[in-house]
Amino acid sequence: MTFIEQWLRSDIKNIDAYHVPVSKDMIKLDAMESPFGVPENLKVEFLKRIEQSEVNRYPEADPSELKDTLRALMDIPDEFGILLGNGSDELIQLLALACSKNDLIMSFEPSFVMYEMVSKYVHLDYFGVSLDSNFDIKLSEALLVIEREKPKIIFIAYPNNPTGNSFDYDAIIKIIKSTSGMVVLDEAYYAYSDKSFLSEISNFPNLLVLRTISKIGFAGLRLGLLIGDQETIAQLNKLRLPYNINALTQASVNFLLKDKQRILDNAQIIIEERRRLTHELSLFPKFKVYTSQTNFILVHSDDAQSLYSALKKNGILVKCFSKSSDLANFIRISVSEPSQNNSLIDAIRNYYG
Amino acid sequence: MTFIEQWLRSDIKNIDAYHVPVSKDMIKLDAMESPFGVPENLKVEFLKRIEQSEVNRYPEADPSELKDTLRALMDIPDEFGILLGNGSDELIQLLALACSKNDLIMSFEPSFVMYEMVSKYVHLDYFGVSLDSNFDIKLSEALLVIEREKPKIIFIAYPNNPTGNSFDYDAIIKIIKSTSGMVVLDEAYYAYSDKSFLSEISNFPNLLVLRTISKIGFAGLRLGLLIGDQETIAQLNKLRLPYNINALTQASVNFLLKDKQRILDNAQIIIEERRRLTHELSLFPKFKVYTSQTNFILVHSDDAQSLYSALKKNGILVKCFSKSSDLANFIRISVSEPSQNNSLIDAIRNYYG
Repeated sequence: MTFIEQWLRSDIKNIDAYHVPVSKDMIKLDAMESPFGVPENLKVEFLKRIEQSEVNRYPEADPSELKDTLRALMDIPDEFGILLGNGSDELIQLLALACSKNDLIMSFEPSFVMYEMVSKYVHLDYFGVSLDSNFDIKLSEALLVIEREKPKIIFIAYPNNPTGNSFDYDAIIKIIKSTSGMVVLDEAYYAYSDKSFLSEISNFPNLLVLRTISKIGFAGLRLGLLIGDQETIAQLNKLRLPYNINALTQASVNFLLKDKQRILDNAQIIIEERRRLTHELSLFPKFKVYTSQTNFILVHSDDAQSLYSALKKNGILVKCFSKSSDLANFIRISVSEPSQNNSLIDAIRNYYG
Repeated sequence: MTFIEQWLRSDIKNIDAYHVPVSKDMIKLDAMESPFGVPENLKVEFLKRIEQSEVNRYPEADPSELKDTLRALMDIPDEFGILLGNGSDELIQLLALACSKNDLIMSFEPSFVMYEMVSKYVHLDYFGVSLDSNFDIKLSEALLVIEREKPKIIFIAYPNNPTGNSFDYDAIIKIIKSTSGMVVLDEAYYAYSDKSFLSEISNFPNLLVLRTISKIGFAGLRLGLLIGDQETIAQLNKLRLPYNINALTQASVNFLLKDKQRILDNAQIIIEERRRLTHELSLFPKFKVYTSQTNFILVHSDDAQSLYSALKKNGILVKCFSKSSDLANFIRISVSEPSQNNSLIDAIRNYYG
């Protein structure tokens, strides 16, 4: 037995590292990235901002301009506090660290895998309540679990990943009211969704909203934000590692994310393409296409695994789930700009011949 | 009682958030930053690399070029593995998360405060063994604590922060041999030190070396690295949050840190200035100046607190420790380039009149 085998927690030894597929030179429709990069007309000024950053100095520890930029972009009221993370993953972990030993984290399944993974990392119990056949919340079951397990945190992805739908709003309100724990609405896909829980923060002290800039064109910058009551955020901030947002991300966000209209326009393009792609995909007889409030579309097909492989051979990467999972017969397709979406449709047509 | 007061762990409620002093427009000699920014002759190519980064795509999850760059810069043998963190703070936290519940983390005091803070965040016990009056390890006491407390991890800053000295090499070897836990040598200041434990990784499977690029000119980029046996690193990698190193840091490191000679030359300038500054400071009768293997100098003076305030009024920020700490009568001065060091000496001369 090697040193690390006897030293490391056995529950970590037995898991696999998070796997990221090779995607070089492929059409990437697997990771809910925006297809829109830095526009040509902003590049000169963007690079000037980078040039002015002092890479030899620690970044600003509590970057107020960055928070102001996010407030303006996402219409976050001044009375709410904002906690910044190196991606929302870091904030999920920080929330788990804010729990006491022996606490339990609850979420729904299928949903974002990091809620369970992070619970495990932090030695917390995790309970996943299954969604119904339409991927909505079974409210009475959820309320029973809350009463029985007394979760310290309930993570709710709104809209949900990887299913793309938004759960019933009133059911979530009932969940928030029923629990003495913290409810975290993960609105990673807020830009593509009709509804948000942001304004409800004023009504419920146990509600936090988690967002990220990854799905609106800035996945490379790694910035997540947790929004909530000022005092709640100030307390949680004690668990944040100092200097967790690097200087170049700060400089980039403070310039690129002030361009609110362009970001909103890009989201509209994706929403329109989602409508078109949903229609085009539903024309394939094999497919059951799910309604989406996000920048991706979930599709059921008996031959999902082989379709995934065929698309990959054609240079198109979509998300396919493990053969042992409940989603083995599903693929998840990120909505891109028109030409990439057309390439996808063409490749599927070729596959079905 | 507010919601967060009843919800949050009481041990976190009672601590203060990590405090970073305001430093705008000041001569910053408080944070061990390098005074050397991106040189003019590299700026054009640097900005080209930034321009080529796709900020809308997730960063490379397991960046091999980045690791190769660090290997070449720091002479890390191919047979060792490298784990990357968003600063070494994140890696300290990852190591704490790799422990089992009820494990204990040991370090020495005074040393880097994050070892204790992170232990607390992760619900682990912490034991700090006091250094002797020369800030070296009391070996027999350390060995007794190891036998009694059976620490899962022993963090040893080498050289030590905030004292600047390197502990006795043979004492550390005895500690590594005496423990069934992991020993982490934190070599944040390796570039300014005569000795390193890097090559000892081949000899001891329970040895890891932690480094950062923060003290060699790149604090703004936030990049730490943990070096160890390949299998050990592969196992610990399971606890790393995916995409923790952002795209712009990757692009920057892959260009700026390939300029090895310049980085070595800059370190030599600081080492030479450290020699000069140590001499100049030792001419003040009030001062006891400690020998340093880092890019900072620890100074004892009865009037440390008032000297700190006087320097601050003159636009020079050094590190002063809490009035209640054992280091209340010390200041820690980062070594900068000649003109800033001269400004410091002048300001101290003015203070003493």
